[in-house]
Amino acid sequence: MVKKIYLDNAASSQKKPATVLKAMTDYLSNIGCSPGRGGYDCSLKAGRIVLETRLAIAELFNVPSPEQIIFTHNITHALNYAIKGLVKTGEHVITTSMEHNSVIRPLKSLEKEHKIEVSYLKCNRQGLLDPQELEQTIKDNTKIVVLTQASNVTGSLMPIARLASIARQRGLSLILDTAQTAGLYEIDFTELAIDVLCFTGHKSLMGPTGTGGFALTKKTAAQMSPLIEGGTGSISDQEYQPDFLPDKFESGTLNTVGLAGLKAGVEFIRKTGLAKIREHELSLTARFLAGLEKIRKIQVHGPKDISLQTPTISISVAGFDLGELSYILDQRYGIMTRSGLHCAPLAHKTIGTFPEGTLRFSIGYDNTVAEIDYVLKSLREIIPD
Amino acid sequence: MVKKIYLDNAASSQKKPATVLKAMTDYLSNIGCSPGRGGYDCSLKAGRIVLETRLAIAELFNVPSPEQIIFTHNITHALNYAIKGLVKTGEHVITTSMEHNSVIRPLKSLEKEHKIEVSYLKCNRQGLLDPQELEQTIKDNTKIVVLTQASNVTGSLMPIARLASIARQRGLSLILDTAQTAGLYEIDFTELAIDVLCFTGHKSLMGPTGTGGFALTKKTAAQMSPLIEGGTGSISDQEYQPDFLPDKFESGTLNTVGLAGLKAGVEFIRKTGLAKIREHELSLTARFLAGLEKIRKIQVHGPKDISLQTPTISISVAGFDLGELSYILDQRYGIMTRSGLHCAPLAHKTIGTFPEGTLRFSIGYDNTVAEIDYVLKSLREIIPD
Repeated sequence: MVKKIYLDNAASSQKKPATVLKAMTDYLSNIGCSPGRGGYDCSLKAGRIVLETRLAIAELFNVPSPEQIIFTHNITHALNYAIKGLVKTGEHVITTSMEHNSVIRPLKSLEKEHKIEVSYLKCNRQGLLDPQELEQTIKDNTKIVVLTQASNVTGSLMPIARLASIARQRGLSLILDTAQTAGLYEIDFTELAIDVLCFTGHKSLMGPTGTGGFALTKKTAAQMSPLIEGGTGSISDQEYQPDFLPDKFESGTLNTVGLAGLKAGVEFIRKTGLAKIREHELSLTARFLAGLEKIRKIQVHGPKDISLQTPTISISVAGFDLGELSYILDQRYGIMTRSGLHCAPLAHKTIGTFPEGTLRFSIGYDNTVAEIDYVLKSLREIIPD
Repeated sequence: MVKKIYLDNAASSQKKPATVLKAMTDYLSNIGCSPGRGGYDCSLKAGRIVLETRLAIAELFNVPSPEQIIFTHNITHALNYAIKGLVKTGEHVITTSMEHNSVIRPLKSLEKEHKIEVSYLKCNRQGLLDPQELEQTIKDNTKIVVLTQASNVTGSLMPIARLASIARQRGLSLILDTAQTAGLYEIDFTELAIDVLCFTGHKSLMGPTGTGGFALTKKTAAQMSPLIEGGTGSISDQEYQPDFLPDKFESGTLNTVGLAGLKAGVEFIRKTGLAKIREHELSLTARFLAGLEKIRKIQVHGPKDISLQTPTISISVAGFDLGELSYILDQRYGIMTRSGLHCAPLAHKTIGTFPEGTLRFSIGYDNTVAEIDYVLKSLREIIPD
């Protein structure tokens, strides 16, 4: 049997820390009920787990208070809540040319209904952005900047500190997509003055699928209308959605068993140390990039510089169909990758790989030096010089 | 230590079948990756689990094809997708006076923005509805009927067959909330000609939290706009949301581990038999109702007739604060109940228990005759004659 090497961490982290499964098993075996205000003991326990998960996330991102953390089905939902809940008719929104469809599609749909105007900051062929682009694109009716912190195609990091500072100075709301960075990079919600920080639970935060959400300021919360309304377990005498946090944006039963797992994931990160996780993954990335450079037919896209990118690497290979190459890597070598457009057509247009896409390797904390070397050896075997 | 008796199944089923935890553990331990079109082996396995869950749900509700099953975070989200995705400005919507806030709040919010008009069919003090009410309330601009199949407060069953037939004859779309009935009652999507059937995964379907969704007809799907848009793993070259099912309404990573659990839950129901589960729960309900009748100070709300209600029973007790009574039952007797408004203020106004609410007992498949007798004995002990 071939060994199995998972290199699709940009889609989802595969092997969660053992404590994640344990937390979920404990929840299902010993609690299993819905959080409720007041109520019986196990309902209080469920409520406590949800609160502790909020606290863990708030601490991770330096968010002042746990009720500013809202849980959603996934980060796409979080981005939709933020974009559709905040953008008003006639406003101008700025995003980048490296975004995932989770940002592009909601914006395109609002634009199509002639409600808003969208500008796409042009990133270079490495997927990198000059912050001056933002300065130059702001208009009188610009209200919101929404962008990813790092590309899910090339790993290219956006100059967030500078962009956030420009947004703040010009009075724009900043919605940040941290799908590729949360759990890997320090993200300071308060210091950066982010308005809505969207996160996914099942990638580098090490939690299960069905978790994610956003952190938001109280000021933004007051301006944002809820996409989903319903039972909140609070002010149940009211036929209107509550206007306080987190209830305004959380309706129906939360994914409590998933949140129990997410809490364990975030605790694993805190215990291990964000920097240690990042350094491990980036050192593997550097090794992988160096090895790829030596395979003549491979073209690496993106910055090729671990100070400018996440552990995600996209390549093209002269004379190879990438879907087929991905299949060979999986079937013959047990190496799991993803080929195609990675739900980010605009990013591929930016780096010049549309419509064929790229073959993507995304490294996780589980990967080892030996695995990276094996992947390089396998690529050398498949791709003749 | 006191024994523990869970009687809050209308909120969530507590002890899931052992196969549910097993399926989730298997998923996390042996698969753990995201479903993808094409791609590597474990991604295909993940995709297969999602498809098998769709098939299991489609079979349960007699839905023609699995892509007509859409998965959401919970049933509140499903109801919001249906209501907000279908109702258009100027239209008249009909609902009932027994609804949960998951129906009332989205409608109230659309109404407040002066977009729609809402009529509430008046149910009687038992929470029962005369279908003639629907006939008489239909107007020229009536387009949608949205209602629960059974009240989450009194268990009162709506005359769905008759209501669905009227809706069909008058050309109205029918959105059905099966939060209290799916997994307990046969619900035939095709025969009833339901347009959108919303379901929750974590109650009688025996799945984990973070699961739920809706079934819809292809015709309705074409008319319904998606609340959430983003990456779907399909036609990734397009910057607009796909218009085919299920992708149109499923964006971002699904709760795959939760769906693996839901599939096991639905398989448990199929294996055990819906009728057997229902008969067990209803026979306990009949026993409980008969016992409650003998406690003078207790007033039972709802039909008090198992042919007209689900295994959910709401009571008031003369001279008792219900929150306190719920607390005593939990702390002293280990009996878990829920007191208050159960996120359904309008229902309490209908049955005459607003704003104080009721004490609710909701029976599940795990409960036994001995437990019901113990609850009755405990109530007799606490409540003097």
